[in-house]
Parts: sequence; C-alpha cells; structure tokens
Amino acid sequence: MTNQIELAIQDDYPDDFAHCYGCGRLNQDGYQFRTGWDGGKTLTMYTPKPEHTAIPGFVYGGLIASLIDCHGTGSASLALHRKNGHEPGDGAEPPRFVTASLQVDFMKPTPQDVTLRAVGVPEEIHPKKFQVHTEVYAGDTVCAKAVVTAAVMPASFTSKK
Amino acid sequence: MTNQIELAIQDDYPDDFAHCYGCGRLNQDGYQFRTGWDGGKTLTMYTPKPEHTAIPGFVYGGLIASLIDCHGTGSASLALHRKNGHEPGDGAEPPRFVTASLQVDFMKPTPQDVTLRAVGVPEEIHPKKFQVHTEVYAGDTVCAKAVVTAAVMPASFTSKK
Repeated sequence: MTNQIELAIQDDYPDDFAHCYGCGRLNQDGYQFRTGWDGGKTLTMYTPKPEHTAIPGFVYGGLIASLIDCHGTGSASLALHRKNGHEPGDGAEPPRFVTASLQVDFMKPTPQDVTLRAVGVPEEIHPKKFQVHTEVYAGDTVCAKAVVTAAVMPASFTSKK
Repeated sequence: MTNQIELAIQDDYPDDFAHCYGCGRLNQDGYQFRTGWDGGKTLTMYTPKPEHTAIPGFVYGGLIASLIDCHGTGSASLALHRKNGHEPGDGAEPPRFVTASLQVDFMKPTPQDVTLRAVGVPEEIHPKKFQVHTEVYAGDTVCAKAVVTAAVMPASFTSKK
C-alpha cells in the first residue's frame, strides 16, 4: 500500500493557484492535500487533527467533504494532464479545475486517529469536464463514497485578479 | 434581513455533542456555526476568514460544503424539535442529527470578504430523516445550492464513548 505520494499534481500548480485552503502548498493554515497516481487510480491521504471531530472519536464530515473536493479537482487535473502527455514532475504546467458539484454519501462513522485514503477513478465526460468517483477509506473500511464533477477553471475565476 | 441568530439550536446541544469542528460551541478551533429559524426557513451565517480561499478572491468550496453540512444537521434538528413542540432556548434538549448524504452544486464563484447566508427548508422524509434544501447566498447571489439528508444520530455514534 502506498504510504507517501511522491509526485503530487499540486506541487506543479503555479504559485498563483497554490493558495487553496484544501490543497494549496502555499497556504500554511490549510490542509495541504496532495494528490498523485497510485497505479491507475488517484490517491490523496490525510490524517485529521484532533480538532477535526464531529463528536469525540469520529471525524467531521465537512473535513471529509473537503478532502473529497480537492481530491476531485486534483484527480481531474492528473487525468487531463496525462491525456495531454504529461505527468507530475515533468515540468509542464497542469490544468487547474474547479468543482462544479460534489455528492457525498457517508457510509460509516469515520474513526479518528487513522490516516484517511481518498481513492479516485477519474472519467472524462466532456473535453473540459471530468467526473471523479471516490471512496474514502479508514483502514479497510469505506467510510464515504463520492462523485465530484470538476470543470477546467473558467476565465471568470482569474479575471478578478 | 436577519443579521444575528439569537436562538441557535447548537446552543442547546448537550456539552458532549458540542465539540463538532463545524458547529460545536466548545470547539475553539472550529467554525462555531449557529443555526436558527428565520421566519419559516432556517439560517446559518458565516464570514470566511482570509485563509479560507480557493484562489485569491474566492471562497474555498470545502468551507462552503462544511457550512452546508452543519446547516443541514442543525436545520433538521430545529425542524424535529419544533415538531416535538419545542423551540431553541426553551430548556428542552434537541435531537442530534448526522449527515447521511450531501449534494452541493456550485453555481457561481463565491467572493471573499462577504458574510455567507445558508438558507434552508427542512422537509421530513421519514420519522427519523429530513432533507434540507439549502441555498448559500453571498449578498443577493446564490453561489451554491444543496440538499443534505440528515438522520437522527444512531446509537453506534455514542456507544464508543
């Protein structure tokens, strides 16, 4: 089982797009999620902090939704980057995605003190849109199942800057 | 327009259930969302902090999903509490809910430096289950639409304690 993501897509985002609270490597207050390939699937790992609780002993659903959100956009970026002939770390700038929709089914209470593994299968549904089917594991248990629809970041997102 | 929630359902949760990262009044590191009635709808307000960014100028989707999550369980609690003849602040302990599923459609980029308003309509779909239809406003703009299915907290959530 992979316990470390060596080449994450977020490592290659340009600095301007590296401030996301979920997955921005330059956001010191955020989660700094990192997403890479693990075989033919995508993987994001995170160990929730003690404060990320729903009730004592169980992880807060909003943290799980956040993990799924950034895992979704990161996975879509990995998939389109690969389609374009690139892999993380090869020096090419990856495409950035935004979340169009997020569907999460919470299957089981998620125990704390466990590293969560979001495992995804990205599927192209349009040249600029991917669906990422994700399962979040705590150990061998699937605690959440999700579908993220991610779209290539529109120009309106960057025009404000 | 209501700018303050005087009687929030979370104020009445027992201390053991007041540690949620989203809506626990005793979680000093969390968002401390508060949800109350505003006419016949439910309302949760939150002003994202500067670090809660997706890219500079826009709010992180995971924060919006978190707001919707706790707004959903809080709204379901308000609705069942009212059905049982109670209102926040009357001294009765409200029912606690967990999120069974979360569906969020992100309609528009959500600007930062604005107080977000999650406005909900809870609908009973089973004696122990509510669907909460929610719109998240930034000013007059609906930035996200969501449906949360919330279920009365099962015994398995408390048996671990």
